[in-house]
Amino acid sequence: MKLGRLNHIGVATPSIADSIAYYRDIMGATTVGEPFDLPEQGVKVCFIDTPGQSGTEGTQIELIEPLGPESTLSGFLARNPLGGQHHVCYEVTDINEARAWFEGLGKHILGPTRIGAHGTPIFFLHPKDMMGVLTEIMETPREGSDWSN
Amino acid sequence: MKLGRLNHIGVATPSIADSIAYYRDIMGATTVGEPFDLPEQGVKVCFIDTPGQSGTEGTQIELIEPLGPESTLSGFLARNPLGGQHHVCYEVTDINEARAWFEGLGKHILGPTRIGAHGTPIFFLHPKDMMGVLTEIMETPREGSDWSN
Repeated sequence: MKLGRLNHIGVATPSIADSIAYYRDIMGATTVGEPFDLPEQGVKVCFIDTPGQSGTEGTQIELIEPLGPESTLSGFLARNPLGGQHHVCYEVTDINEARAWFEGLGKHILGPTRIGAHGTPIFFLHPKDMMGVLTEIMETPREGSDWSN
Repeated sequence: MKLGRLNHIGVATPSIADSIAYYRDIMGATTVGEPFDLPEQGVKVCFIDTPGQSGTEGTQIELIEPLGPESTLSGFLARNPLGGQHHVCYEVTDINEARAWFEGLGKHILGPTRIGAHGTPIFFLHPKDMMGVLTEIMETPREGSDWSN
């Protein structure tokens, strides 16, 4: 496997509304997405854009807030009530190849490959096998793709 | 302030040597810097490059390992023995303006402005004021600059 783009870092927050105000008013973010629910993951999501080099798109901040007390994120926020860094997400060109790669290495994959916040297939790898970092692998969005089948 | 480039994310590790092997052999990193000591911060540092969009430089992974038991990082690793996400670092064009901005907002700045791992001035902001995220602010490197005075 070849290391892909760091698409986003996931930042847990008890309140996406408060985080949006923070990134906009304190950190000076100019491009803030519309929050939306991702019920499969039990989270509400909002992307904050950061600038990349030479006018390109940089790594995004993915704000994630629990959708309810059953969310897997609730435990993280119980330990970190202010929120905090939750995961990192790297892009790959082929999600099936990437899954086979990590499976072949005996890495613990958390659940099936599913559709993530950017509408492309993703899976998560357990931090215990990834030097302590919860790691999401995401297929790079391509124009004209149809992931619904 | 305007949100700058996410220069790097800081990832704590008990062993930079093990992390280099992990990023190279498991994650497929192709550009791995030479590790070096940063005694002012009590850490050994190594940068892993990730690709940005359209051939640009992406956000780096800054591996940090305690230089000794007195390192401020030792407490983090005692709580997270495998390592884990430690901080994020955003670029600004003027470090003094940025410091004045955060001071004016009453944010808790950790120590004086000093020279960071990329050779430009940096400071850290306490996670309690930054939605739980330890945040480094770093002046963008410029050619021909002299930070020694």
